[in-house]
This record gives sequence, C-alpha cells and structure tokens, in this order.
Amino acid sequence: MAEIRKPIPVEEAISRVWQNRLEGDVEYVSIEGCDNRRIAEDIVASHPVPPFPKSPYDGFALRSADTHEANRNNPVTFEVVEHIGAGQVPVKHLHKGEAIRIMTGAKIPEGADCIAMFEVCQSYEQHNKAYMSIKRTMESGQNIIQEGSEVATGEKLIEQGTLINPGVKAVLATFGYSQVKVAKKPVIGIIATGTELLDVDEDLEPGKIRNSNAHMIASQIIRAGAEYKYFGKLADVLAASYDMITKALAEVDILITTGGVSVGDFDLMPAIYEKLGADVLFNKVAMRPGSVTTVAASGDKLLYGLSGNPSACYVGFELFARPIIQHSLRNPNVFLKRIRATLADDFPKPNPFTRFVRSYITYENGDVFTNLAGMDKSNVVTSLAHSTSLMVLPGGTRGFNAGDQVDVMLLDDQEGQCEFGFTENK
Amino acid sequence: MAEIRKPIPVEEAISRVWQNRLEGDVEYVSIEGCDNRRIAEDIVASHPVPPFPKSPYDGFALRSADTHEANRNNPVTFEVVEHIGAGQVPVKHLHKGEAIRIMTGAKIPEGADCIAMFEVCQSYEQHNKAYMSIKRTMESGQNIIQEGSEVATGEKLIEQGTLINPGVKAVLATFGYSQVKVAKKPVIGIIATGTELLDVDEDLEPGKIRNSNAHMIASQIIRAGAEYKYFGKLADVLAASYDMITKALAEVDILITTGGVSVGDFDLMPAIYEKLGADVLFNKVAMRPGSVTTVAASGDKLLYGLSGNPSACYVGFELFARPIIQHSLRNPNVFLKRIRATLADDFPKPNPFTRFVRSYITYENGDVFTNLAGMDKSNVVTSLAHSTSLMVLPGGTRGFNAGDQVDVMLLDDQEGQCEFGFTENK
Repeated sequence: MAEIRKPIPVEEAISRVWQNRLEGDVEYVSIEGCDNRRIAEDIVASHPVPPFPKSPYDGFALRSADTHEANRNNPVTFEVVEHIGAGQVPVKHLHKGEAIRIMTGAKIPEGADCIAMFEVCQSYEQHNKAYMSIKRTMESGQNIIQEGSEVATGEKLIEQGTLINPGVKAVLATFGYSQVKVAKKPVIGIIATGTELLDVDEDLEPGKIRNSNAHMIASQIIRAGAEYKYFGKLADVLAASYDMITKALAEVDILITTGGVSVGDFDLMPAIYEKLGADVLFNKVAMRPGSVTTVAASGDKLLYGLSGNPSACYVGFELFARPIIQHSLRNPNVFLKRIRATLADDFPKPNPFTRFVRSYITYENGDVFTNLAGMDKSNVVTSLAHSTSLMVLPGGTRGFNAGDQVDVMLLDDQEGQCEFGFTENK
Repeated sequence: MAEIRKPIPVEEAISRVWQNRLEGDVEYVSIEGCDNRRIAEDIVASHPVPPFPKSPYDGFALRSADTHEANRNNPVTFEVVEHIGAGQVPVKHLHKGEAIRIMTGAKIPEGADCIAMFEVCQSYEQHNKAYMSIKRTMESGQNIIQEGSEVATGEKLIEQGTLINPGVKAVLATFGYSQVKVAKKPVIGIIATGTELLDVDEDLEPGKIRNSNAHMIASQIIRAGAEYKYFGKLADVLAASYDMITKALAEVDILITTGGVSVGDFDLMPAIYEKLGADVLFNKVAMRPGSVTTVAASGDKLLYGLSGNPSACYVGFELFARPIIQHSLRNPNVFLKRIRATLADDFPKPNPFTRFVRSYITYENGDVFTNLAGMDKSNVVTSLAHSTSLMVLPGGTRGFNAGDQVDVMLLDDQEGQCEFGFTENK
C-alpha cells in the first residue's frame, strides 16, 4: 500500500535541483521603478566622480603661492573678481592677487589651486570693489576635491546581480541610468491541493480549514524577488487536475503545488508527475520538517510539490525554490546567508534527520543569539510569523543546550552566500 | 556674513522632531496586496487552531480501549467502516471493534480517541468488507492534534504595527482576513535644490552633476515603507521657490528638500522657512556627516532640509525622517536597530562630534563585525551602495582600532527598536 520512498540528504536534493536551474531574462525599467530589483549588468563608471575639481566648502578660490607671506600679523589681500555658485561655471582665469568667491560643489576656476573657507577670511568692500584678506598660508591642492578622486573612469562600481538599494540607486542616477537593465522576475505559479481548503473569504465549516499555504508561498515568492500567479485549488479528480497543471505550466517558469505529495489515498501529485512524464528529482528528503517534498523537472520547467504542512511548505520553498529564483535573478549568492549563533534556549529533541527550526535572531554585546520561535506550543503558523531565521540542527544529534553554537540561516537577509553549507568557519 | 548656528546634540535633535511626530491613517487592502505593509490592528484568534481535533498522519482512527489486548502475538482486528480524506467530514460514530481510514488533516470521527499510522497496521479485505489489525496497544489521545492545541480563541497573535511577512500573511489567511487593515503610507515630497543639478537623463556639462540625492531619498522612503512624490528642482529665485514649496506642502505629509540649507550665498531654504512662518526645530546638529541638517514644523507638516552632500543627506534621512515615518506606520519600534559589533578595521580619525560611518556587517563564529564601506577613498556614493549599517562613533573620541566594540545601526533590519540609543547592554 504505502509506496516506499528513499530519503536523500538535503545537500543532495539541493544539488539535483541546481542541475536543473533556469536562466532568467532581462528587461529595462525606469530608474523610478528599479528599487529592490537586481541589476543585470556590471555598472562601470562612464566618467570620473567628481567630473571636475570642486570645492568642498563655501569660500574663496585663490593661488596658494600668493599666501606665502601671510601670517597673523601680516594679512594678504586679494581682489574678489568673480562670484560662482555650484553649477555656475567660472568664467575668469585667476591671476596673481585675485580671488573668486565660490560655493560648495562649484568647479575650481582655472589658475586657482586652493580654497580658503569663509571662516578663515575677512571680506570687505572698497571703492565698489570686493576684497578678501587672509592671515595664514595655504598649500597647493588644499580643500580641493580633485577630478576623479572618488571614482575613476572605467572603475567597476556595482556587480551584476546586486539588489538595488538607496545607495545603488544613487550610483545609477550619478551615471545617467534613466533606464536600468534588471533581471526579469521569474513567474512562479501556485496551486493548492486539498479538498479541506476554504478560500480566505469563506466561513469555516466542519472538517475544513482556510487555505493559508498559498498566501504564505505567494509572500515568500515576493520576498525572494519573483512574481506569483495563483491558479486556485486543484480539482480532486486526476484528469481535471492534470489539465489544470499542464495549462498552468505553460504560463509560468516554475510551478509550486502545496499538499497532495504524500502517499495518502487522495494525494494525486505522484500520478500527475507520471502522466506528465516529468523527471522526479526526489520525493523524499532526510529532513524535518518537509521530508515529503518533491521536485520534478518537466522540459525546461520545474515543479515543486511542497508539503501541505505550513512549516514544511515554508522550509521546502526556502531550501529548494529560493536558490533557483536567485539564480534566475542573476544573484550569484543564491543561498540564504548562514551564520553561527549561540543557542539561547534548550532544544532537547534528538534529530535523526537534519532539522530546520523556526527561530529569530537577537544580538547582545557583539554576540549573535538564536531563539526558538514558538517554543512552548506547536503553534506553527504564528511561530512562522515571528521567525527571522531557520536554525540548522544536523541529523544524528541528540538535542542541544542553551549556550551551544549552531548554524542559522537568515530569512530576511538579501545578500545571501554562494554555497549552501556553512563554509566560512568550518 | 556667515550666520552663526549653534549645534545641538543628535539625541536633542531627534527629541525635537519626535515632539512634532505625525499620526498616520489606516486603510484596507486585499490580502493579495498586503506584503510588507504594517498591520494597523492587533490580530486576535477568532477561532481555535485547529478548529477541530485532527489527524497528523494517514492511518486509522479507532478506540484505544479496543487495543488493550493487542501484542506482537495477538493482533486485534477492526472492521473499517468508513474512509475519509482531509476536508471530508466523518459521518459515522465509531463503535467497539470499528476503525475508520483517515487521511492527514482530517477531522477525528466521533467515538475515536487515537490514530494508528498505516505503518503499524495490516489492512486486508474479506467477503467484500475491509479490515485492519494492529499488534500493539494505543493510548487515548495518541496521534490526535486536539482542537485549539495550536491557538486558543481570543489569543493575540500579531501586534499592531507588525510588518507583514510570509508567516504573518499565513496567519491572516488562516483567520479569514481577505481585507487587511494596514497603516496608510505617508506621502513624502522630495524637492532637489542646486543649479548644478542635471536630471538623470541629461548629458553631463561643465560644472554640473546629475541629481542623485533625489533618487537616493526616494529609495530610502520606499525602504522605510512610505510613498514619495518628486516635485523636481527648486527654482533659484526666492518667490518662485516659495510658491513651489507651499504648493508641494499641501500635497504631502512631509516635505524633504536636499541642499540649500547651508549659509552659502545661494542657499534659499533659511529664507523660505522664515517666509513660511515655520518653526525651525534646529538647523545644526553636532554630528558628522550632516551637521547642517535642518528640520522645521509648519502647521501639521514637517519640512526636512537635508544636506546636498549625499552621505549627509542619507544619514539625515535615517536619523530624523525614518522614525517619524515608522510612527505614522504604527510601528512602535521606530528607530533603527542598534547593536554592538567588533570593529574589523582601524578608524584613526578623531571624532569631535558623533560620527555616523558607512559600514557593513559580517559574522564570524557567533560574533558580529562591522567593516568600513569604502575605506580607502572618499568614494561616497559607491560606499553607500555597499553599506548595510551605520557605525555610531561617539563625539570626543580619538579614533578606534580594529577589535574595539562599537555601536552599529542596521539599515536593512525591519524590526527596529523603541529607543534611539543603545540601551540593551549599556
């Protein structure tokens, strides 16, 4: 009756999915709408920054050589021959004994080699002419931000695959990217299975629960940077289900179903994979939760059969679907960032298989701690709401105590890492 | 000439802005569009979870009392009288010697008090009737997830102000929130000042640079969960500028200008604040960068005059505008999360004033490190692109060495904290 499935290690399951990863497309979006997208090309400086030598202060541009006699008792006087704000271009070439009044960010006039801040100068007018005097010597180059001192032409500034944050957007604006080449969001289909599922706007009825997994997965897809398409609930007849899934597959890059992957009498997914002729990469993983996770390849599409259990469904997505999405988004760091942290609570359960535990991170005096989310009861859904990380407890261990160091995968981190495992400090 | 401004401490500046904080509105959005919004009410369980006692496995529901004679040599046999999947409601009341075949998630039939997994049962048919037998005793309640064992009716599940992540969305779906009450996004106006500024799609010309601050601030506004409205560049004539600002103010909750707040000859903002009759809360803060940041209150609106320097502009927004936006979004933890971290690099510059240093976080063996972003050159914009945190170096210090512990504010963290300062481990 119950088909015997052979569980494979998590790393092996990830490797099998990875061999079937999808390449993503690119598109152009206006700079206004590029936030949180991933750049699809290296951004290289097309001009120096600053593009001209400029003043960091409001003050006077002058020739340092003219100040060499200046000291506290011997002010040196300059005639102020021009007055330029930022964005105004100096017209005059500065000569001996002349100064130009200049505002922050303005281009240094020809002939000048330093800026004296207002604070160290005396300004005055005489016979309708403007003058300034200074009681100290200046050095050549003093208070001048040289052309290219921040960025040289040709310097690589942003790597392909980088998430566009406020600083990246500023770089794009600086170099004139009014249209930004970004990775196109892959489209991930969602189908829920289970006759016990009600829609979110339906009233509860005996034996039924509302469909929360589809909404949760949709949110995980958004967090991963992709787009989702919800196809509704699977009919509980094989032929109709098969039709729905083939139709959905044609419209998406990846198709995720939740539930129906066990060996229960009403679980249709195995039969559908067979009918599709899909290559089932695995249908059991040596992990908790989520051991019945299935991933299958059908042509150039991937089908994820995630568990109907919310927590297993959540973990299955983060482990097996998120890296594929990241690759399609050109993020080289496809895996969740994995760090070491100190366990804040006891976790006395033995782990015959690798266990991914809902948890959240806290910081104290430079140390990172990981805390169990929803420790006291098996409040699955609520504890997912409070989780910011998944603890990774290796299989074959007999439980852990507060104070032990464990691996933790960060769920909200957008940087990630290029290896699944914890390699940095092994 | 140069107006003398008295710098106030950062904490005092924040406190003055805080006294002028804005209360936000709420709105309803469909559950499909609620990601990354903040919930505007406490979410309380309107029914128990699970709403009925259910089976965690595929197996047989039976009366544990009927197994008391069972052992390895004495299988006890039951007649299988019904077959129910998840979502199907058991019709029959179970009697002595009867079992009901039941799928994961299905409601426990009346009369049954335990579930025997398929794996421990033998099934067979005889004379067109279904039977199962078991060779072990079962206990009352075994393998039954009791009604309300995850969540009791009336339990508070999610606090007002919580950011909607995948787990929160699952909770909302579970309890039937097809429409979700969320904090309305405040609208933040942006105006750039500076005649040196080109639009992002304009070619460079002598003495001019492209406007990157407006795009950067727009992105910071989005990251903070608000909405932006860009009004363009300020005219460099007082009357026209005043008109533009009064018009913009009428359309937004908060108005941010970048540049024009110094005491330079072309800086119009001080005169505009005066003409508006705005209450200037401060115009100089004892910090680097961003000492010339101005915040003014005009009626129930706040005006931020941020520096034209990208890095100062960035820091000014995060310190003074972000907490006000968070409050309006009902997030009680309005301030950036501040943690202790170990300095990975030397920072030899003395700090006469509190200094906020662009940096990024790394983790190693359970410890948190903070690294200078763009250490080697004053590459302001690019280093902002790589920053995930701001180091907080107190004023009156003479520089820091690698290995020192310092405070760090996390820029991407969405949780925040309710006090500005670092209180946890002082």
